[in-house]
Amino acid sequence: MKQVIVFRSDLKIGKGKIAAHAAHAGITGYERVMSKKPAVVKEWLSEGQKKIVLRVKDEEELVGLYERVKRSVPAELIRDAGHTQVEAGTLICLVIGPWEDEDIDRFVEGMKLL
Amino acid sequence: MKQVIVFRSDLKIGKGKIAAHAAHAGITGYERVMSKKPAVVKEWLSEGQKKIVLRVKDEEELVGLYERVKRSVPAELIRDAGHTQVEAGTLICLVIGPWEDEDIDRFVEGMKLL
Repeated sequence: MKQVIVFRSDLKIGKGKIAAHAAHAGITGYERVMSKKPAVVKEWLSEGQKKIVLRVKDEEELVGLYERVKRSVPAELIRDAGHTQVEAGTLICLVIGPWEDEDIDRFVEGMKLL
Repeated sequence: MKQVIVFRSDLKIGKGKIAAHAAHAGITGYERVMSKKPAVVKEWLSEGQKKIVLRVKDEEELVGLYERVKRSVPAELIRDAGHTQVEAGTLICLVIGPWEDEDIDRFVEGMKLL
């Protein structure tokens, strides 16, 4: 089991904003899967809640990945509230899972770490 | 309501590791408060789950802050599993809340953003 968070690498955002969005993404994924498959979340937590943080080039790649993944694995796009650094509503990252490794791996294999 | 995540700034860790730990911290705080005061978590989520990411100088400051905060606000230290970049068990960050703003603010007022 793992949760994958994917950031755009074309935004000029600081590490504090990255951290805040990563926390938001992590909790959003947790809640989404907990509401449908709580046993998956519990197993993931019991294994130490593994997380991988990856990157894509831009918004187009992020949305493309989301569209492919969401057909078989719980996933959600995360937007910025836009108080600082970027415009309101800017897509920042994508959270996938927590879910089975093999179901996630076929979408993210070969992608680069953030 | 807010959740505050505080990182040490003396560790040489990349933004990917910061993001993974922020997600871990966010979920750990969520779970901790949910198990004791679910109404607080629900209110925080309904308000948009505000998060602030701050920094302290080193481990000593992080542990000192944790010791002061935990008497009145749910808080937890997050350690690295130690696969890369730092030694296993290294303290990386602290999660506070989600909890009432005013109860958190008296501990973190004046601290710098990450």
